[in-house]
Amino acid sequence: MSTKPTVNPHVSCDCVVFGFDNEKLNVLLIEQSYERLGDKVQNALPGDHVWEEESLDEAAGRVLKELTNLDGIFLKQFKTFGDPDRLRNPKDLAWLESYRKKPATRVVTVAYYAFVRMDDFEPAASSFAEKVFWQDVQDIPQLGFDHNEIMEEAIEVLRRDFEVYQVGLELLPEKFTLSQLQNLYEIILNRKLDKRNFRKKVIKERVVTPLDEKQKGVLHKPAQLFELNAANDPSGLRS
Amino acid sequence: MSTKPTVNPHVSCDCVVFGFDNEKLNVLLIEQSYERLGDKVQNALPGDHVWEEESLDEAAGRVLKELTNLDGIFLKQFKTFGDPDRLRNPKDLAWLESYRKKPATRVVTVAYYAFVRMDDFEPAASSFAEKVFWQDVQDIPQLGFDHNEIMEEAIEVLRRDFEVYQVGLELLPEKFTLSQLQNLYEIILNRKLDKRNFRKKVIKERVVTPLDEKQKGVLHKPAQLFELNAANDPSGLRS
Repeated sequence: MSTKPTVNPHVSCDCVVFGFDNEKLNVLLIEQSYERLGDKVQNALPGDHVWEEESLDEAAGRVLKELTNLDGIFLKQFKTFGDPDRLRNPKDLAWLESYRKKPATRVVTVAYYAFVRMDDFEPAASSFAEKVFWQDVQDIPQLGFDHNEIMEEAIEVLRRDFEVYQVGLELLPEKFTLSQLQNLYEIILNRKLDKRNFRKKVIKERVVTPLDEKQKGVLHKPAQLFELNAANDPSGLRS
Repeated sequence: MSTKPTVNPHVSCDCVVFGFDNEKLNVLLIEQSYERLGDKVQNALPGDHVWEEESLDEAAGRVLKELTNLDGIFLKQFKTFGDPDRLRNPKDLAWLESYRKKPATRVVTVAYYAFVRMDDFEPAASSFAEKVFWQDVQDIPQLGFDHNEIMEEAIEVLRRDFEVYQVGLELLPEKFTLSQLQNLYEIILNRKLDKRNFRKKVIKERVVTPLDEKQKGVLHKPAQLFELNAANDPSGLRS
């Protein structure tokens, strides 16, 4: 299309992108432009309106790319949020007033989640994102609109799908230690696991395959490295 | 509210209501008013626009009640459909032209599913539904808009959640035979099951509890009746 796309002012997409740094589970946030908020800063999930002639999936991918420079990410729709009051926080209204013709229009937002290997991508802010940054999911600040609610729901969906399908293991780097794997399990499941039982379990269930390789460049005794066992993917969802 | 609600022309809800008659899995369909389609008939899922001041969940419940008289049903959001072309079938356009001020407006629809015990409810058509009827999911006619796609997706979600959480067992009547239970499993899973293994499995896994009671008023040898074992609800989703 060479013509400028028409924005649909009634429907938006928001993206919850998870990344794992071997210690913490993170989510990708943006800081909305300063000027629009006066001196205030508002953190938010990357999100924006859909265009009239694109599908919801296309919109989610485009919006994520425009704001964070992340491209080619598999985004999965998980829930639509449409509380009539979701845009009525005064701080959000101030931002919307500078940004939209009719800031009071009700917007229904279709929420997506995605997993990325943090090593593989370099987020970069653009469009109305002033900054883009990874934030520990256990320390999420006040976000704009209903984005805290969307975040919480995304984590719940992740937890549920992880327990059943082990969706989320794709957050791991290609090679990882069992400690890193246990970290990821514990954060997603939100409980401590017994180290011995955990190790027995993931090896017995063939979740991982040991590699003939150890960690490099660490101060402690280097741990053995593992990779995901591609054959053991009950969901068929891991690529 | 005493004032007339304002319709949001950009967002709708559609409801996929499943019912099981001990033999077939059915879905509740409506026939849209004759006059609006000339002499034509269009079958569709019960669905309509949300009001400006109600939540999506509220809208789904209200719309279902308005069109089919089903009230107090637990409706679960499962996916939002927003293909830019979803309303562009000429037959649907003819209907929309008679019904809306701006029939070309793009509408994003939030789809819900629900399970009802067919004995407990008596659907009755009203509003723009001319008829309301149960239709075998294995014999769905051409539906309006993208409702065939929504149906297919709902069945896929049901199949997935059934395999993991046994969501869908609430479709059974209070008391049922193992043949009826096997029927339901086979339809949802879309494959034949071995009778002997099936019976062993559901009893061993305590899915069901035998009752001290047999079928009445049947021509064949009356079969033993069972009930769901409430304690065995891995999802916590069955009420």
